[in-house]
Amino acid sequence: MRRLLVAILSAAAGAMAQSPPTPSLPLMPWPSSVKQSPGFVPITHTFFILLTGSGANDPRVKAAAQRAIARLARQTGIPIAVPVRPTFLKPAMKIIVERPDRKGPQKLGDDESYSLQISDTIQLSADGPLGALRGIETFLQLVQQNRSQPREPVNAGFSVPSVSIRDQPRFPWRGLSLDVSRHFLPPDEIKRTIDGLAAVKLNVLHWHLSDDQGFRIESKKYPRLQQYGSDGMFYTQTEVKDIVAYARERGVRIVPEFDMPGHSTSWLPAYPSLASSSGPIDILHEYGDPSGVIDPTKDATYRFLDGFIGEMAKLFPDEYFHIGGDEVSAKAWNTEPHIRDYMKAHHIANAAQLQAMFNKRVAAIVKHHGKRMAGWDEIRQEDLPRSILIQSWRGEKSLSAAARDGFPGILSAGYYLDLMQPASQHYAVDPLHGEAAALTPEQQKLILGGEAAMWEELATAENIDSRLWPRLAAIAERFWSPESVTDVDSMYERLEQTNRWLEYLGLTQRTNLELMLRRLAAPQVDIEPLRLFASILEPVKGYERHRNHYGASSEFNKLVDAIPPESDVAREFRNAVDRYLGAPAPSDADRLRKQLQQWSNNAQTIRPLLETHSLLAEDLPVADSIGAISKAGDEALRYESGGAPQDWKQRTNAALKDANAHHAAMLIAIEPAIQKLVDAVP
Amino acid sequence: MRRLLVAILSAAAGAMAQSPPTPSLPLMPWPSSVKQSPGFVPITHTFFILLTGSGANDPRVKAAAQRAIARLARQTGIPIAVPVRPTFLKPAMKIIVERPDRKGPQKLGDDESYSLQISDTIQLSADGPLGALRGIETFLQLVQQNRSQPREPVNAGFSVPSVSIRDQPRFPWRGLSLDVSRHFLPPDEIKRTIDGLAAVKLNVLHWHLSDDQGFRIESKKYPRLQQYGSDGMFYTQTEVKDIVAYARERGVRIVPEFDMPGHSTSWLPAYPSLASSSGPIDILHEYGDPSGVIDPTKDATYRFLDGFIGEMAKLFPDEYFHIGGDEVSAKAWNTEPHIRDYMKAHHIANAAQLQAMFNKRVAAIVKHHGKRMAGWDEIRQEDLPRSILIQSWRGEKSLSAAARDGFPGILSAGYYLDLMQPASQHYAVDPLHGEAAALTPEQQKLILGGEAAMWEELATAENIDSRLWPRLAAIAERFWSPESVTDVDSMYERLEQTNRWLEYLGLTQRTNLELMLRRLAAPQVDIEPLRLFASILEPVKGYERHRNHYGASSEFNKLVDAIPPESDVAREFRNAVDRYLGAPAPSDADRLRKQLQQWSNNAQTIRPLLETHSLLAEDLPVADSIGAISKAGDEALRYESGGAPQDWKQRTNAALKDANAHHAAMLIAIEPAIQKLVDAVP
Repeated sequence: MRRLLVAILSAAAGAMAQSPPTPSLPLMPWPSSVKQSPGFVPITHTFFILLTGSGANDPRVKAAAQRAIARLARQTGIPIAVPVRPTFLKPAMKIIVERPDRKGPQKLGDDESYSLQISDTIQLSADGPLGALRGIETFLQLVQQNRSQPREPVNAGFSVPSVSIRDQPRFPWRGLSLDVSRHFLPPDEIKRTIDGLAAVKLNVLHWHLSDDQGFRIESKKYPRLQQYGSDGMFYTQTEVKDIVAYARERGVRIVPEFDMPGHSTSWLPAYPSLASSSGPIDILHEYGDPSGVIDPTKDATYRFLDGFIGEMAKLFPDEYFHIGGDEVSAKAWNTEPHIRDYMKAHHIANAAQLQAMFNKRVAAIVKHHGKRMAGWDEIRQEDLPRSILIQSWRGEKSLSAAARDGFPGILSAGYYLDLMQPASQHYAVDPLHGEAAALTPEQQKLILGGEAAMWEELATAENIDSRLWPRLAAIAERFWSPESVTDVDSMYERLEQTNRWLEYLGLTQRTNLELMLRRLAAPQVDIEPLRLFASILEPVKGYERHRNHYGASSEFNKLVDAIPPESDVAREFRNAVDRYLGAPAPSDADRLRKQLQQWSNNAQTIRPLLETHSLLAEDLPVADSIGAISKAGDEALRYESGGAPQDWKQRTNAALKDANAHHAAMLIAIEPAIQKLVDAVP
Repeated sequence: MRRLLVAILSAAAGAMAQSPPTPSLPLMPWPSSVKQSPGFVPITHTFFILLTGSGANDPRVKAAAQRAIARLARQTGIPIAVPVRPTFLKPAMKIIVERPDRKGPQKLGDDESYSLQISDTIQLSADGPLGALRGIETFLQLVQQNRSQPREPVNAGFSVPSVSIRDQPRFPWRGLSLDVSRHFLPPDEIKRTIDGLAAVKLNVLHWHLSDDQGFRIESKKYPRLQQYGSDGMFYTQTEVKDIVAYARERGVRIVPEFDMPGHSTSWLPAYPSLASSSGPIDILHEYGDPSGVIDPTKDATYRFLDGFIGEMAKLFPDEYFHIGGDEVSAKAWNTEPHIRDYMKAHHIANAAQLQAMFNKRVAAIVKHHGKRMAGWDEIRQEDLPRSILIQSWRGEKSLSAAARDGFPGILSAGYYLDLMQPASQHYAVDPLHGEAAALTPEQQKLILGGEAAMWEELATAENIDSRLWPRLAAIAERFWSPESVTDVDSMYERLEQTNRWLEYLGLTQRTNLELMLRRLAAPQVDIEPLRLFASILEPVKGYERHRNHYGASSEFNKLVDAIPPESDVAREFRNAVDRYLGAPAPSDADRLRKQLQQWSNNAQTIRPLLETHSLLAEDLPVADSIGAISKAGDEALRYESGGAPQDWKQRTNAALKDANAHHAAMLIAIEPAIQKLVDAVP
């Protein structure tokens, strides 16, 4: 059987990958190969799973199968019975795991392939435990309510369609880098996130545990680190062990990051002797240029790091250990006489060379504790061993250069979720495009995948899920699915279904934003006008909002915090406008005008709410702009065959420009499409 | 201070209680005395609580204060800092607890009074720890967003209004009886429910742990009970201890119930010798008449119960132990020759007398293990000690008779949440009304309060919150607030705010129903039409739905399961119709007609969804009826000054009658108001 399965999977890998048809099965990431056939298998309350094969005893597989039953019940509302005598019954689903459990932690490159055959029965086959875990997610995504044609009733219930799927990941390293320093995320939130990662077949949680604003883990060896560096918000070692075990059970590796020597202000209140500069240092409560950088010139620094890394290396079983290494302030070193002296004495020309020396010594420590080192672009240097992994925030160019240099690497540039960009933008970024496309096949193999990154300056535990999801699922598809899977419309269609499906895991991307909207409107009960108002807004993009004065005491309870990064309504409107401008039809114009009038009316309706609610008052100029540009769009549609008043275009363009002022840190997402309508007026 | 506080509270108790003004503070239960004054205290990120007084060391108070900070942050989105040096800062809130901690479990009648003074500062004073806990809930309910008049901006943020509150409960026993036998509720759900109980100042969770359909607790002495009686769904003793501690920390007593000798089928698969009848017995998977009743004629029965009750008495620290005792099938005894023989030999005339004998022996066992016995109406008998508590499902008459007999009692009749009645109906039931009003003051004192009851035949872990909340908050007000607080409009207004507030505790009454609606409509993204359709529907009332064939494998995933027990929209429509009929105005008629047309149009819009979705197909007749009666209401408003076609009324009444057919176990909640409109046509 093992050989057969391998053969099947090789065949699948060789087969031409296909983009999903529309409307397609709600699968994300889209598998390597999907063949649908007529028919379906119903889900009933006697559903149960039979595990078989020498790998079926893997505790991960057993636990995943148990969770699958509970999740199936949750997804369908069917009370799935615990069968007392399962051997007497025909299993609804058979999971075959060929390979017996390998001891030790999950490793980069562990087999994740699987095959899922649904015809009369449901059969999931995998060579190893991880494949079974991935296949279970695919199976759960397939569960749908029975649908009928009008006047052709079917049984009320749920089923999975007949389908033949063979699947395997494109890249072995598919992760999320999650910053818990700027805003702490409680352990339950980390677990929920792990559930989400596993659901969309991501396999690495890169845990950014320290930065200038907070040191988020308990050290038993150096307890002052969390005592002075965390404001009381850190993970105990018990919690960390629990989370690591939780992740392992779901096929997710945890790679810890302790950023050094820069981004390390939070280490220094407890251990000021580690600092490059003297004088009292507090953790950074206001975001901005960090002042604290670890001193690379003292032997004591390395003794401390040896102790600390040794302790952490035992806590985190993963092969990799991330030391950050990004954005070190040269000034912090160049202005210190004792560091300048050291550099002179040791013939170190500049800060970059000094960091290179630091990296080399840290690399030896990390290796000594049995780990491979990972770090951001800046750690790359000629005389480091090629076992070191480079994570690129700088981009494909830097990543390709690393690969040419022989370093394995992963791409994060283009996947920064905190920049509030649309899913389509991240979806278009491919770790093997750009300069990487010109690499030799051998060099390309060094590009192991990528990681989305979520920095938490402007996100909190309350709205973090809405910043991660659903866009992260689109990035997961980029990392898992064949390169050819690029259809944006299909992606958005499946993303919507996937987003709903993720809610069954308890993710709060929709529910918490709704609660925030209700809080903003309270005591008003009807939040429909606010919802409509918010539905066409987006947070400003990139680092624009970061330029405001934000800190640990900032409140993220305004409208901009309560809306998703991307407006589905605006995207659909933009598509409708494009269709209309491509082939104008009066009925389409009517539909667009009706929508614009609704927004324009609502901008009036909502004024009393904005005027009386202190947290919403900043949104009044946004309402003004929405009113003005919705009216402009309506007029543009009326004037499209000519007849606009003489100065109409000038006035209208001024209103559109004004609407781009980004009041209350938001942009009006329908504005570009309205501009198109206005531009189209002769 | 202690004497002073007592004086204050006595004064408050003597003061004339007032109904809340409209619009009122979002407090529920409404306190004994509330005096508002101008001004407010802002909530800032430096908010912290100072605990003082000899009772401030009570771990319950400390934990509640810590939770209050976290909940305040959750309610406002303000990141409330952990102050490193609190003594240097002026506390935002002072909690004074006079009395030092009393050892032992929380007891019936423990002081729960408090006083909350908000002017320049926030001061909460209580004689005992429980008062502090209750006062913290009141404080948290007061937190509101700063509101301004148009063009008079205020600071963006949150505050509590200046107010002087003195408060104490009307009844000392205020509970919820929660059935976890018919559908198991996971430990987390029990904890969430305890959070909710504490939030609305209820103080008893009566845990109905066994019934015909499942035995839901681990016995270490008789492990077969849970092994054979629970389908694998039971609470471990570790979980029970955790829940008991969780409840204690929140000022909630846990009273366990093990229903005997009836409603005890689930004991018998494990221990058939306990059964009155011989032959194999399985737990009841289909709801209906139970077959298994414990045999009261054998000494072995009492030896078993002594062992079991002894074990449970240790696990549950509460003074009370509930033995159920309701609805014993006389037939189960009268048809058994050995029981008939026993009755003859012991001169026992009938089944009731046999149960009386059983109760007496069980009462001795319960007492032997240091507990007071509680039970339903049926256990009342002359020769039982007056320490026994009677819980009345039969009604005020039975409860009053018990009080006249000298038995303390609590009322549950009128508070059955599973009957899907409106909050106003429960709100109108008062434990001291009806026959109880005629009791002597001494006898009235025996009526200790009441318990809402939630039986779980038709509710699951998924929708249980929506069956409990928010109606339970209205019942909580009945048990806590002065008798004179009865204004239904004010109740509904505050209930709506309280319901939103409860969501911050993670209760799922809104979010899970929304998820269920989304599941029903999937893959359709826009659920607005389904939401509008559902907004005027209610589940059928009373036991009508129970008559269908339901069991443990039944699916509760239809529309009736995804709607709240009470339609707010229909209630508002009914009120609007009443106002209109009282003083007809054309503008009101227009508004009503617009609403009716919206429902009528939507009933058309939604047809394709209902026709193609197997779980919604049963709702097609409902859509037909909504269309027909909305049209009828619209016509009635047009014909109100005469001019209806000759057979219009006859046809219309037929349509209205047809709309009462209760398709898909739902009723169309706007129907009675439409009938009124039709009746008003001359």
